[in-house]
Amino acid sequence: MVNLMPFERENIAQIEGYLPGEQPSSSDVIKLNTNENPYPASPLVAETLSKIEVDELRRYPSALADEFCGLASRVHNVNPENIIPTNGGDELLRLILTTFAGENDTLAITSPSYSLYPVLANIQGCSLTEIPLDKDLNYPNELAELLVDSSAKICFLVNPHAPTGGLLPVKFIDKLASNFKGVLVVDEAYADFVDPALRYDCIPLINKHKNLLLLRTLSKGYSLAGLRFGYGLGDSELISPIKYKTRDSYNTDYISQQLACAALSSREYAMSTWEKIRQSRKFLSTKLEQLGLKSWPSQTNFLLVQIPDNPGAEYIYKKLKLDNILVRHFDVNNLNNKIRITIGSEDENKRLISSLVNILRI
Amino acid sequence: MVNLMPFERENIAQIEGYLPGEQPSSSDVIKLNTNENPYPASPLVAETLSKIEVDELRRYPSALADEFCGLASRVHNVNPENIIPTNGGDELLRLILTTFAGENDTLAITSPSYSLYPVLANIQGCSLTEIPLDKDLNYPNELAELLVDSSAKICFLVNPHAPTGGLLPVKFIDKLASNFKGVLVVDEAYADFVDPALRYDCIPLINKHKNLLLLRTLSKGYSLAGLRFGYGLGDSELISPIKYKTRDSYNTDYISQQLACAALSSREYAMSTWEKIRQSRKFLSTKLEQLGLKSWPSQTNFLLVQIPDNPGAEYIYKKLKLDNILVRHFDVNNLNNKIRITIGSEDENKRLISSLVNILRI
Repeated sequence: MVNLMPFERENIAQIEGYLPGEQPSSSDVIKLNTNENPYPASPLVAETLSKIEVDELRRYPSALADEFCGLASRVHNVNPENIIPTNGGDELLRLILTTFAGENDTLAITSPSYSLYPVLANIQGCSLTEIPLDKDLNYPNELAELLVDSSAKICFLVNPHAPTGGLLPVKFIDKLASNFKGVLVVDEAYADFVDPALRYDCIPLINKHKNLLLLRTLSKGYSLAGLRFGYGLGDSELISPIKYKTRDSYNTDYISQQLACAALSSREYAMSTWEKIRQSRKFLSTKLEQLGLKSWPSQTNFLLVQIPDNPGAEYIYKKLKLDNILVRHFDVNNLNNKIRITIGSEDENKRLISSLVNILRI
Repeated sequence: MVNLMPFERENIAQIEGYLPGEQPSSSDVIKLNTNENPYPASPLVAETLSKIEVDELRRYPSALADEFCGLASRVHNVNPENIIPTNGGDELLRLILTTFAGENDTLAITSPSYSLYPVLANIQGCSLTEIPLDKDLNYPNELAELLVDSSAKICFLVNPHAPTGGLLPVKFIDKLASNFKGVLVVDEAYADFVDPALRYDCIPLINKHKNLLLLRTLSKGYSLAGLRFGYGLGDSELISPIKYKTRDSYNTDYISQQLACAALSSREYAMSTWEKIRQSRKFLSTKLEQLGLKSWPSQTNFLLVQIPDNPGAEYIYKKLKLDNILVRHFDVNNLNNKIRITIGSEDENKRLISSLVNILRI
């Protein structure tokens, strides 16, 4: 492509932007492509939304979302100064780069992982160290050593992993945070869906490691993807420059602050959806296996599914789309023979399975 | 302050963050400090808000806010590709720097102007060229030449000016855009309040100048500061890298997109508030003059008021605060003997004047 945009910075001119999953306007579509929660947010969130008056929007919101920080600190047993609310988790990822990595610094990630990470590194002009998973998408045994040896300023680890759904244990994160010299970011966008029996909880680690920053979002676990609200947890010295310097002055809006507080206050309701999704995850992976389709063990609200070369992943993706079922197909190395399926409602999952039965019988 | 934060980039460690105006939690306060509109948003915005169901928030919003772009393009008689919606105007300012200015580039501004500009330049690690206004806060006669000679990659001009309220005519912008070699950003946050008799309209200029980018916001003119919604207008080649590369993937949320569409669809209602504010602006400046307080001719929803050294601007600011009236005092060179007063409702303006009468009589 000829660069017709002389005003762009050189690194911006060279990059390709992030491509979000399709957002069909039709509501008939069974949407299993962007890991949204199939159940609506809690009745308290609905009630809070219904009570907001337009006159409340006349004034600027709380710049620091103080009420949310107080509430989240009580929920997670940390201090308000350990919390940074952001306009979706994506804003936090960007702010971490802005705050901690300059043009000559390196971001370390695994490959594959969340496809936004390299885009953000490119925008900031950072170098990228990518640690490849093996051909079965397992982490290399020496993952921690490779990350430490990368001398990266920042590491983004999505845990549970996207798009495999696999979970690194707390012990691993603890030890890595001790050895890694830069800022270790654990993107816990999907942590709400981890089986509670695994006792996965990294939050107490932020009191021990000054370089550990955890990302949470209300998009998936709290059914509020449309709201754009996420938050970071970390040592106050790590949070402080983001909170008081690099963040846009009013980065979260009044309504999102109100609804985020309502969502966290009615966490038990969200938890009941997580349990339903875990049950459906088990159902779906069993059914897929019965169809001869192997999926990765997942602690998230999606399954990565291996598709045999015949008929091929793109074929399945397209056939499902003709049946009004959207799933995600990443046309990149290592992933182009797989599809990623979001766990839907019980009904949606059943319709997906019947559609697959038909497609595979042809 | 000792820098205890070894993870911060050097330029971030050295900067001070932007300090937003006070946001008191008490609703008894007459809030004339952050240029909010005293009248609520239109009945259509209220109705739209009341109809939004929490289930609609389950899914990600339109990544590009397509509906808003279509509507705004019809309102302003441009193409949808000339519009970039953002999470408040502040996000657009940041994105312009991210997209067009690297660490060795220069941002040109006038001094004083919106105090966020230097903060954003510092975060991006850009140099700053500040063109000082004279001691009466008039632009220098050679403003255009100084900006052109600065060789800046970007120029931010707030027009009408903050904090004086003065307006540069369309002709000036037109000529400057022709001569300036970088991206000329005209921050029109207050343009809605310009007297229509002046026929100030820079939007047609974006079809003529490939380097002109205009900023609009719903915060002030449309009474939606709490919502965080702004947008840029410019040549599609200027807008495109922001829209498809540097913007966070879902930068505006579902509710703000819906309400922004409602606000623009009921623009006549907002216009009626602009007219009321212009009437009140005239009333307030006349009353202030009767109290011996000179204010700058303003085309915005605020007045910059000169305060005699005795009693001094800080004294007036504090005395008004004791009367539950908040105004803005900038404790910086050139401005520390002035206060900035947002035009309030008729009742608020009258209460401000009575309070000032009392304070000045002491």
